[in-house]
Amino acid sequence: MTPDEDLHPDDVQQHLREVQALLSRQRLVENLVHRQDMPRHDLVENLVHKQHTAELRHKLDALHPADIAYILEALPLEERRFVWDLVKAERDGEILLEVTDAVRETLIEAMAPEELKAAAESLDADELADLAPDLPAEVIQDVFQSLPSEEREQLRAAMSYPEDSVGALMDFDMVTVREDVRLEVVLRYLRLFDDLPDHTDKLFVVDREEHLKGILTLETLLINDPEKEVSELMRTEIVSFEPEDDADEAAQAFERYDLISAPVVDKEKRVIGRLTVVDVVDYIREESDAEILSHAGLREEEDIFASVWDSVKNRWSWLAINLVTAFVASRVIGLFEGSIERLVALAALMPIVAGIGGNSGNQTITMIVRAIATGQVQPDALQRLLRKELGVALINGLVWGGLLGLLACWLYRSASLGAVMTAAMTLNLLLAATAGVIIPMIRSRLGADPAVGSSVLITALTDSGGFFIFLGLATLILL
Amino acid sequence: MTPDEDLHPDDVQQHLREVQALLSRQRLVENLVHRQDMPRHDLVENLVHKQHTAELRHKLDALHPADIAYILEALPLEERRFVWDLVKAERDGEILLEVTDAVRETLIEAMAPEELKAAAESLDADELADLAPDLPAEVIQDVFQSLPSEEREQLRAAMSYPEDSVGALMDFDMVTVREDVRLEVVLRYLRLFDDLPDHTDKLFVVDREEHLKGILTLETLLINDPEKEVSELMRTEIVSFEPEDDADEAAQAFERYDLISAPVVDKEKRVIGRLTVVDVVDYIREESDAEILSHAGLREEEDIFASVWDSVKNRWSWLAINLVTAFVASRVIGLFEGSIERLVALAALMPIVAGIGGNSGNQTITMIVRAIATGQVQPDALQRLLRKELGVALINGLVWGGLLGLLACWLYRSASLGAVMTAAMTLNLLLAATAGVIIPMIRSRLGADPAVGSSVLITALTDSGGFFIFLGLATLILL
Repeated sequence: MTPDEDLHPDDVQQHLREVQALLSRQRLVENLVHRQDMPRHDLVENLVHKQHTAELRHKLDALHPADIAYILEALPLEERRFVWDLVKAERDGEILLEVTDAVRETLIEAMAPEELKAAAESLDADELADLAPDLPAEVIQDVFQSLPSEEREQLRAAMSYPEDSVGALMDFDMVTVREDVRLEVVLRYLRLFDDLPDHTDKLFVVDREEHLKGILTLETLLINDPEKEVSELMRTEIVSFEPEDDADEAAQAFERYDLISAPVVDKEKRVIGRLTVVDVVDYIREESDAEILSHAGLREEEDIFASVWDSVKNRWSWLAINLVTAFVASRVIGLFEGSIERLVALAALMPIVAGIGGNSGNQTITMIVRAIATGQVQPDALQRLLRKELGVALINGLVWGGLLGLLACWLYRSASLGAVMTAAMTLNLLLAATAGVIIPMIRSRLGADPAVGSSVLITALTDSGGFFIFLGLATLILL
Repeated sequence: MTPDEDLHPDDVQQHLREVQALLSRQRLVENLVHRQDMPRHDLVENLVHKQHTAELRHKLDALHPADIAYILEALPLEERRFVWDLVKAERDGEILLEVTDAVRETLIEAMAPEELKAAAESLDADELADLAPDLPAEVIQDVFQSLPSEEREQLRAAMSYPEDSVGALMDFDMVTVREDVRLEVVLRYLRLFDDLPDHTDKLFVVDREEHLKGILTLETLLINDPEKEVSELMRTEIVSFEPEDDADEAAQAFERYDLISAPVVDKEKRVIGRLTVVDVVDYIREESDAEILSHAGLREEEDIFASVWDSVKNRWSWLAINLVTAFVASRVIGLFEGSIERLVALAALMPIVAGIGGNSGNQTITMIVRAIATGQVQPDALQRLLRKELGVALINGLVWGGLLGLLACWLYRSASLGAVMTAAMTLNLLLAATAGVIIPMIRSRLGADPAVGSSVLITALTDSGGFFIFLGLATLILL
């Protein structure tokens, strides 16, 4: 490839369009065969079909595995499987690593156990650990048996760490050197390699028992006199992790200290692995995706070409929870049916009070949950935050509640109805602010993730609370 | 620092607690001075005060700028400014780069123009460009005049690119080499450097006119025979960007191809800058933060210790929009006040229909918006997606609507009310699915960002639509 054929960021969409074009020509041929079904045409169409398939296979062979993954994700099921069959078997493993979980499932379903085994065996232990949960148990068992004992240990280790730990993200590819040698020796040592592990920006300096003594960046190695000793030049202020560390905190440390790679050590400070920015980037993206999806009550990334049934399964639990909370709110309204019968304007106005309370509560809880996640909110900040949020709620309640009160007053020619509206809005916003601060604080103190379901909780509270406050006030004052 | 004093990911929270402890001792002293206000005590307290201040200053000097930024973000306003005054002036610039926009504002407000000028002058052109929008115009003007002409050009270039472009993220630190030299020459050339630009994993191979010919990774440089020539070993399949490229696409390319750095070239393929994974990570984090905040209608990251007034400003527009949509929904209910007066059960049941429609619509629109953002949905997928989402909606409508219909029937002893409930739920879910697919598709075709305000739009539609469908059906059938 000459520089004129550089990869450009939008190239992958170009590749996708080309593959789609080839596929649709393919489909045209197949339709022809089906429609006419005449023996003498068969040969010609078969030839054309073969030619398109060869062209497509050729195209796929030239693509980066991540690009093939992207294309597979963008194709509907039957075309996806057709393309998947054309991909060279030895590339299956690396492509399975790149696709989203939902798409991976559809690809694995289409593979025979031997194919899966071959694909799995082409991977490193840390990669295999990522793939393992999606593979059939017997395939894992087979692959496990066939591994050399060191890799088997690595795989066992990698699979033993919980999903959101450093241990689950780390790899085992690293280059270690001793501190009592000259740079020149290190340089000669490196020339023995066919290649360095991907994303190597530093070597780990260890003693005979693999204890971490320092790090030697490639930069240090390159800019210094080769006659100097590693111990003179290595850095000893090291950001290192233990496999049990929280992946979130590791990701924050990578961002804070602008790291490319960092050693992972055990309790005795022996180097056992390495964390790279590439794994951290994937982790950050997955976490933020999960957070965005959970806001809409989606349990996981959905393959957009998933079957209706798979989609229903991904979404039903959120709808069920909301149905319960909506039903509770409906029963609160039920308590006041007598009042509504006597003053039907209440029915039209009550959803406004509940809805704005939910919006405002979600703003508060989003702020607080995010501040807790960074560790920047200490428990003693509760009072200060509460005071601030109540202040915001009071202003919003008086301003927007006042405006709505005027509107209600003008629409229904009743000043007291307007006053009830303003009062109810203000009270519901104060309720939303209080709950928005206190719910995540309590959950974080109980050790729960304050983000999970926070939106459902606050909305349930401001709905039922809003109806109760508004209809209750109206019943007391107006009727 | 010995390896026993490694940085650990949770160290920064330890630092924060130590600073807070010092500050609270400080505050204790100040309170004492205020309360007693006796001349003979002054001297002692002044001494203690000075001692604590010195201790704090010492602590801060030892910290990484990113850690100081973290601590500043976690402190309330007056303490933040106190700590900020203790930070060495020459570190101001790098710390201002690290803090969030909201906190940066509070720090800049507290600085004199000369201090700001000194801080700005300590930065590289690309860093200065990031900071510039927050600085007073006269400071920028002064700094600009004082720059050497090359850097002035770089600053002008960096500031001329729109916020979400590669040009706004790139830096100007790169090492270039010629293709017709031996590795040994490159190695000797590198030894002339005091340090390489941060995160250098590759050198850019250029010709005399700075045209990009290839890349030479540090790995290639280290593992190969120094007698070989650059041209033999350089890679020519290069992922490169142009400054006008979309930062989102560049970030996706970094993730897809696991890049650490990549050259930025102009239209004539001359190297003009460099994009690193560190800037990409920051960008990814900022984008996903903005997306999560926008779901709750927060315009930007809020300093959690911001004044009530700043918070009100950050949040008011979302509340205003929701007020309008809630008011419209309320007017839809107003149309059916006669029906509600005659069958008050409608008032209690209608929020369920509207609420579940909103939930379901948000699920659909979240899926579609995300698929569009990756470029994996082509316009011709519309029909297929619509069919699938309508299928999901139909199942959910019949299942959950059916369940609610039974509940309504049992609560109000009316089979026809139950039937209306089921029918209205199903129709509103179908409406939600249709709008959830079509709204983002149309907006993307019109060139708008399909994510912005999608949640408000769909909720507005399913609220008003839900009320209309349910009350309308009930009026037709039951009354």
